[in-house]
Amino acid sequence: MFIILVYDVGEKRVAKVLKICRKYLTWVQNSVLEGEISAANFKKLKLELKRVIDEDEDSVIFYILRTTKYSERQSMGIKKGGDELFI
Amino acid sequence: MFIILVYDVGEKRVAKVLKICRKYLTWVQNSVLEGEISAANFKKLKLELKRVIDEDEDSVIFYILRTTKYSERQSMGIKKGGDELFI
Repeated sequence: MFIILVYDVGEKRVAKVLKICRKYLTWVQNSVLEGEISAANFKKLKLELKRVIDEDEDSVIFYILRTTKYSERQSMGIKKGGDELFI
Repeated sequence: MFIILVYDVGEKRVAKVLKICRKYLTWVQNSVLEGEISAANFKKLKLELKRVIDEDEDSVIFYILRTTKYSERQSMGIKKGGDELFI
């Protein structure tokens, strides 16, 4: 599956959250990562994040695409993140 | 179509960008919006954003899903944005 992860977490936890996410996904913009991930790794990613975030203050959203066949990615302006995996 | 929009723009332009995006989409997290949009409105949205952003400094990414049939949205922590449209 392909996931798009967006996070909005307290400043103190940003570095930790980003570090965890980058183990599994590609960073594409400020607080956005994306990438192919196995169900097992997705589970691990969520567990690791759960340990670090403050569930009363932080927010992490996962968009899970079973296939990218019906999806497309467009961008405007500069490229801030890493490699483009999506299309 | 359904789009997920993530932006990372200079502080001076955040309010303007958010205002434009909210005309067409639902705000779900800090710099993330999502929603069903017609092709015509998507074109308008991109034109309006193009006028406001600094293409040498800012970044806007659009994930375009022709269908949400193969997609799912999960979240962790608090809900920061508006209504949930996705699933």
